[in-house]
Amino acid sequence: MTTRRDCSALDRSDVLAQARDRFVLPPGIVYLDGNSLGALPVSVPERVRDVVERQWGTDLIRSWNTNGWWDLPRRVGDRIAPLVGAAPSEVIVCDSISVNLFKLLTAALRLRPDRRVILTEAGDFPTDGYVAASVASLHGAEVRAVGHDDLSDAIDGSVAVVAASHVSYRTGAMHDLAAVTARARGAGALVLWDLAHSAGVVPVDLGAAGADLAVGCGYKYLNGGPGAPAFLFVAGSLHEAFDQPLTGWHGHARPFAMEPAYEPAPGVSRAATGTPPVLSMAALDAALDAFDGIPLEAVRAKSVALTDLFARLVDERVPGCAVVSPRDARRRGSQVCLSHPEAYAIVQALIARGVIGDFREPSILRFGFAPLYVRFVDVWDAVDHLVAVLEGDEWRRPEHRTRAAVT
Amino acid sequence: MTTRRDCSALDRSDVLAQARDRFVLPPGIVYLDGNSLGALPVSVPERVRDVVERQWGTDLIRSWNTNGWWDLPRRVGDRIAPLVGAAPSEVIVCDSISVNLFKLLTAALRLRPDRRVILTEAGDFPTDGYVAASVASLHGAEVRAVGHDDLSDAIDGSVAVVAASHVSYRTGAMHDLAAVTARARGAGALVLWDLAHSAGVVPVDLGAAGADLAVGCGYKYLNGGPGAPAFLFVAGSLHEAFDQPLTGWHGHARPFAMEPAYEPAPGVSRAATGTPPVLSMAALDAALDAFDGIPLEAVRAKSVALTDLFARLVDERVPGCAVVSPRDARRRGSQVCLSHPEAYAIVQALIARGVIGDFREPSILRFGFAPLYVRFVDVWDAVDHLVAVLEGDEWRRPEHRTRAAVT
Repeated sequence: MTTRRDCSALDRSDVLAQARDRFVLPPGIVYLDGNSLGALPVSVPERVRDVVERQWGTDLIRSWNTNGWWDLPRRVGDRIAPLVGAAPSEVIVCDSISVNLFKLLTAALRLRPDRRVILTEAGDFPTDGYVAASVASLHGAEVRAVGHDDLSDAIDGSVAVVAASHVSYRTGAMHDLAAVTARARGAGALVLWDLAHSAGVVPVDLGAAGADLAVGCGYKYLNGGPGAPAFLFVAGSLHEAFDQPLTGWHGHARPFAMEPAYEPAPGVSRAATGTPPVLSMAALDAALDAFDGIPLEAVRAKSVALTDLFARLVDERVPGCAVVSPRDARRRGSQVCLSHPEAYAIVQALIARGVIGDFREPSILRFGFAPLYVRFVDVWDAVDHLVAVLEGDEWRRPEHRTRAAVT
Repeated sequence: MTTRRDCSALDRSDVLAQARDRFVLPPGIVYLDGNSLGALPVSVPERVRDVVERQWGTDLIRSWNTNGWWDLPRRVGDRIAPLVGAAPSEVIVCDSISVNLFKLLTAALRLRPDRRVILTEAGDFPTDGYVAASVASLHGAEVRAVGHDDLSDAIDGSVAVVAASHVSYRTGAMHDLAAVTARARGAGALVLWDLAHSAGVVPVDLGAAGADLAVGCGYKYLNGGPGAPAFLFVAGSLHEAFDQPLTGWHGHARPFAMEPAYEPAPGVSRAATGTPPVLSMAALDAALDAFDGIPLEAVRAKSVALTDLFARLVDERVPGCAVVSPRDARRRGSQVCLSHPEAYAIVQALIARGVIGDFREPSILRFGFAPLYVRFVDVWDAVDHLVAVLEGDEWRRPEHRTRAAVT
């Protein structure tokens, strides 16, 4: 049996242990929800203060030039690029994942005008399916949704674009990005990866895989803050032909010429639309400092160790909860999901004890492990509290069973 | 001839004089670019600090419930509603104007499936035209662009939606919102107003006019900070039928049910798409405190007085510059534009002297007057510096003639 002392020993030999100092973490909290909202990096508050008080307050409109606001979407994109195996010129930060999916799915259908199928995964994050359905209906196309394990085999010559999450938000199941991409390319289909649950925690190599398009989240493992802008990736080979429908002035070749006709900017900049939320984007920029000098391979190694440990401790100590994430770490992102009929109330009871995970319908307890700030003792303590909540029937308390607006 | 002493007297009798204390303004600066980026309200820095350090840093994911992040788009919309004559439930804050135009123009075409014309104004802000062209091409519709003065007469039975700026970004010319709306309704067309250059500075009464749709800017006269999220308005009468294409999960009737099929939320909430940038939206929320207790009629009266004064002083003292904004204040927003062949260099020379306006192609000097913080002596000083720049040939200096990325 694993002990807390064993976990402490793992922390002492953890090469990423010092990275925790790059985050502000409230005392007494075990935070296993960095897959929903990453913790606050210490570099952020001062940067945001500077943007508000000096750049906005004092420099005012001049900051678009003098403080680099204009280039921020590309500059932050350049910093995200190495985390996902992209060239710097292939990533831009803008809008939300939902909005960016609309752009990229439409662009994909335009790049494959002879094909009418958007292939998606059933049970993927809802917004991905909603936007796919909307884009399909606008183009007389069709959404074909298949199970996680059937995705690769479902790619055929009718598929214009395969649009799927690299890591499932609900189960943590991870696709073999290179294999699915290769299969799509072999069939002449494009592939659009949603990296919301992998960017920053799983080494992603879009370039080596030959992926065409991707979107990703700024506020989960990149720690950019609540509602941080999303990023999108367009492979360099598509930059000339890429044609997206949200043709705002920030995507124009010469935005300040104020020309009446839209001419897309060269490269990934044409994926930009309106004026970006500078405060939120500056926070994301500062947050990326937390990755300075950190090899993603070390992040992944610790992520696997943390998730393996959590699953093992649940097996050992929590017979009432079933691990529903893949057991094989090669097929799993950085989260472990458990199943229990009273999942909602159990999650609330854990939060009351300071162990923050989240609930997903219908019966999932979801725990994300951000290796930059989650310790091995946190894993132990989380399971310890879970045992206590179940043994003491704490979850039966009425206050834990009342649904909040955001679950 | 008007004197600086006359202007000081106007400031002493200004009922809005105290409102200037609600803003942080750098010493020595005359800021006439609040129509591009509003000045920093004093209420913002502390609010943003709280959102970053306490809400994000300490309360973490729980803030979606406990600190009201989830309702922020609607709550801030409720605060903007009275500034534009809307009911609280008719306004939501989300995305950028460009993205929101795409939503509303598409929705408009769906509401008028038998009509195929988007009627716009030639010379309107470029993004409005670019997005209209994109939406038209997706729907087999057509954009018809006419001159400012021809807009109303061009509305006929083929027009699905009239999409125009209430106040022109380039000239400050203002439409009679009620008259154009009435004309559109009479012809069975919808109307979509872009309030970027009027919300917060001109009393707008969307409700009384019977307007259908509108978008507006958070970072100009609402002072929400660089790239603050935009707002959109959908008249209550359209809430049932309104169908927009950016079907993200935040617009779903039950977002956390994570259902596979999209079911739009009731009311204006269905116009939401992805996760909003909370830091930027919280700044906008705090910025709106600057309007507390301020009647928009007083704002408008001062705006007219400021712009009339500026135009008169230019006439009196700057023979080389022509006023290109309407002389009749009833047809003008809160800006005065001048024309000069060397407009770019003159604007740069003024900025070097601490008078901040901006340049618009091809030969426009643009000055915006935000009555909450611009004084009558600022108007005098701005014209005084303009005289000096022109008489001393300062604008001929090479450093003033080099184009920056953002003009």
